[in-house]
Amino acid sequence: MKALFYEGNQTFSLRDTEMPALQPDEVRLRMAFVGVCGTDIHVYHGKMDARVKSPQIIGHEVSGEIVEIGSDVTGWEVGEKVTVRPLHPGIQVASDNGFRHIGKNLRFIGIDTPGGMQQYWNVPAFTLHRLPDNLTLQLGALIEPLAVACHDVRLAELKENEIAVVLGGGPIGVLIAMVARSKGARVLISEVNEHRLSFVRSLGFETVNPAQSDLTNAVEIFSGEAMADVVFEVSGSQAAVTSMTQLCKVRGRIVIVAIHSEVRSVDLFQFFWRELRLIGARVYEPADFDDAISLAASGSLPLEKLITEVAPLSQALKVFQTIDQNPAGMKYILDCQSV
Amino acid sequence: MKALFYEGNQTFSLRDTEMPALQPDEVRLRMAFVGVCGTDIHVYHGKMDARVKSPQIIGHEVSGEIVEIGSDVTGWEVGEKVTVRPLHPGIQVASDNGFRHIGKNLRFIGIDTPGGMQQYWNVPAFTLHRLPDNLTLQLGALIEPLAVACHDVRLAELKENEIAVVLGGGPIGVLIAMVARSKGARVLISEVNEHRLSFVRSLGFETVNPAQSDLTNAVEIFSGEAMADVVFEVSGSQAAVTSMTQLCKVRGRIVIVAIHSEVRSVDLFQFFWRELRLIGARVYEPADFDDAISLAASGSLPLEKLITEVAPLSQALKVFQTIDQNPAGMKYILDCQSV
Repeated sequence: MKALFYEGNQTFSLRDTEMPALQPDEVRLRMAFVGVCGTDIHVYHGKMDARVKSPQIIGHEVSGEIVEIGSDVTGWEVGEKVTVRPLHPGIQVASDNGFRHIGKNLRFIGIDTPGGMQQYWNVPAFTLHRLPDNLTLQLGALIEPLAVACHDVRLAELKENEIAVVLGGGPIGVLIAMVARSKGARVLISEVNEHRLSFVRSLGFETVNPAQSDLTNAVEIFSGEAMADVVFEVSGSQAAVTSMTQLCKVRGRIVIVAIHSEVRSVDLFQFFWRELRLIGARVYEPADFDDAISLAASGSLPLEKLITEVAPLSQALKVFQTIDQNPAGMKYILDCQSV
Repeated sequence: MKALFYEGNQTFSLRDTEMPALQPDEVRLRMAFVGVCGTDIHVYHGKMDARVKSPQIIGHEVSGEIVEIGSDVTGWEVGEKVTVRPLHPGIQVASDNGFRHIGKNLRFIGIDTPGGMQQYWNVPAFTLHRLPDNLTLQLGALIEPLAVACHDVRLAELKENEIAVVLGGGPIGVLIAMVARSKGARVLISEVNEHRLSFVRSLGFETVNPAQSDLTNAVEIFSGEAMADVVFEVSGSQAAVTSMTQLCKVRGRIVIVAIHSEVRSVDLFQFFWRELRLIGARVYEPADFDDAISLAASGSLPLEKLITEVAPLSQALKVFQTIDQNPAGMKYILDCQSV
């Protein structure tokens, strides 16, 4: 079979590899599609070389079909279409507080262990979620990022008719906006890239470009001066962090979705003065995958429009280069059998 | 009657003043005791001169006895002992989100309007809370700061057997620690002042001096490596803000009690990575006053020990000077009838 190996130094190679022996707790998947995540781009750029030892097969936004079942696995059948929740919890420690999805010894499948950018992939059966028949395998590769969005919206405790402001209109920001809208919230997306703004407006979202308009004023107008119930910080920028505390009503919630690799300047006085809440949100729990699959299968979200390009796995390097050159693109998906 | 007027420039004058006419919605209190709050010290230092127009009577941690009742007031009787919840909600705006205790147009009684450092004081009847007979009027003057602590602990949703770390061992920090302990939490207090540490230990609390020991390590040891369920940030320092994200277990809550007048450097990555929560908490709601009165009346908190000195109102200036010179002191209380 063929697999795509990250070789370090912004290179990938597609080459023949042995199919590893199937372990008793695993199933073997014939891979269908793998989405390219922002994290994969970081890997490509070498920023995660300390964690991702090359050569390594990456990829964790997947869909596939079960072709073989390990001897200890029950409850699954050959031929079922599935996606993978790419979290391998490790030994629990006390400070995990029982939250296995972000425990200290968690391994992220596709980063810390081999991923899905290959023709066949062995994964532990506990990672599987069934895809219903009315969901295409292409959309199946969007379940993982959609589960991120479901997790973020769930932790925000977003309610019908609430005002949500999403800072950052990339794939995760747009998915959060879609999920928030599906909960009956009114959503405003803030984004500086005009191409992305145009795309987001085509999905029916109201938008603001904070480089061109005063963001606080835009939220005042959008909310009839009520301000936001929830702000999702998905941009990772200091500018958004500086703004976020200005956008909330009293007891407003700010969800930190983005990875802020640098310490940020935060107006803690505003948290005190108006009793704001900050909520960190990372990956997902099993229920978020279930929610994402239900939402996707309902057909109520315009998920297809998020897919910028579907490319053969053999063209993966070109796709990574395209993403670098086209920051306005949304989701790029690799067809794992086109090798 | 006599009243103490803040005259600006670190001066107070005790002088005769006319008793204002009682409004229909007010009661007149014969004042018993008034505690000196950190905010009063800020006023004394001139730091709030933009807000507090001198001459102004300040003071908002009070106890007293009803001596006259306005024509529209029902439910209160002359002779009842009371404390005052010093919040005068203004016209509501949409962004208040229904939270009147911190609404945009809130006036804080004793800062924005005249306070309790006088022999008689007219206050709106809606601010009153009844003091039970078994609570001394001296302890009645501690109800307001105790209500702050009750509010902080309530918003933290602190539960029995949880680990709470209090950063800052001043009066509010110690009151939070007392309330947290009364909820069945295990409490560690972090404080740099050795005199305060010694006092806090005399109350039976475990302590750490973060200037002398590694705070994170101390919390590890205290918690058996489980780390804190809740951190109360009461110090107002950057050092504490830098530490607070290191002290929590996964999904730990950090309550911002202190007033951070400067923007702080915050490790948002830790909020993301371990799904921490930040909770701003300011003043109190009516239920917090009720809780504070019940707790104080129960006799289960060593509140008397918090009182460093009870001084006559005529010695107020000296008390403010003493507080400046003795940062290890806790609560200073003025006797309003000793003029």
